[in-house]
Amino acid sequence: MPHLTVEYSCNLPDFPAPQALRELNAAVCASPEVADEADLKTRLVRVDAFEIGTQPAQRAFVHAQLRLLSGRTPEAKADLSERVAGVLRRLTPRPEGVLVQLSVEIVDMDRPSYVKERL
Amino acid sequence: MPHLTVEYSCNLPDFPAPQALRELNAAVCASPEVADEADLKTRLVRVDAFEIGTQPAQRAFVHAQLRLLSGRTPEAKADLSERVAGVLRRLTPRPEGVLVQLSVEIVDMDRPSYVKERL
Amino acid sequence: MPHLTVEYSCNLPDFPAPQALRELNAAVCASPEVADEADLKTRLVRVDAFEIGTQPAQRAFVHAQLRLLSGRTPEAKADLSERVAGVLRRLTPRPEGVLVQLSVEIVDMDRPSYVKERL
Repeated sequence: MPHLTVEYSCNLPDFPAPQALRELNAAVCASPEVADEADLKTRLVRVDAFEIGTQPAQRAFVHAQLRLLSGRTPEAKADLSERVAGVLRRLTPRPEGVLVQLSVEIVDMDRPSYVKERL
Repeated sequence: MPHLTVEYSCNLPDFPAPQALRELNAAVCASPEVADEADLKTRLVRVDAFEIGTQPAQRAFVHAQLRLLSGRTPEAKADLSERVAGVLRRLTPRPEGVLVQLSVEIVDMDRPSYVKERL
Repeated sequence: MPHLTVEYSCNLPDFPAPQALRELNAAVCASPEVADEADLKTRLVRVDAFEIGTQPAQRAFVHAQLRLLSGRTPEAKADLSERVAGVLRRLTPRPEGVLVQLSVEIVDMDRPSYVKERL
């Protein structure tokens, strides 16, 4: 069930998209919280229209959101967050003169109303 | 107020986008939870960069997220979730050799800070 | 940390994207809730595939979602919501014969599992 979405701003043109997808999935699926590797669905989105803050500085961002069915412990959530952050910290380019921000958010999904099936 | 976003992976090129939009809105607006049909705003997003799990298998997904102002009963949320799932279960293509996953998530939106108006 | 995403339907082709990004960031960063202006990351997304309700009317929408670390008061959230709404109310085009809806949602992000760093 985990749904992972990673956004990166388009001023990081060297962001290694296919490698990031592969390594993110390997890192998250290695967690004991993921029972079946096929459950993890990861999207990568390049953000073409964005603005960071109000100052005329060169800024970029990578943001990941991982959505899980509710019920995980705080420790499990922190561990998953760090798994995602670890991959992105390693793979995100740092263009010279650009301040790059990285963030990772964990979201609880409502379990009773969640539908999941294989067609 | 309901906001519905349906993502489908780009390896489902025959996903019937206009028909899905129409039928999703008909199904959700028929719920007693939707007071005014004009309130339902549905987006359809084809996901071009994605990865499902870690195995080299052909996999696809359709995922819907329905956001509603908080306060619905669990029964109402499960009913809405199933309305969305019912349409997607019927309309999603099953290409030969591809494992297709369907999921539907209901999200409560914070009611006191929500702004809604017609311009 | 605030993450702001603004979607607008593609039948609002005159939506002033760069101006909206600038003015949204100015309005939100002026809030006492935003400690560092560089923290606000705003995305603008044109929605190409959408359907509003079930009637054959000309309809458009602009929807903003502002995600903040949890712990803000209801008053602070309502104020932030209105800052966003104020800019969008002013800048959103009203094409003749088109019903345009505006909405703003505030989302609490899980604080303990949130990762944030500068690379």
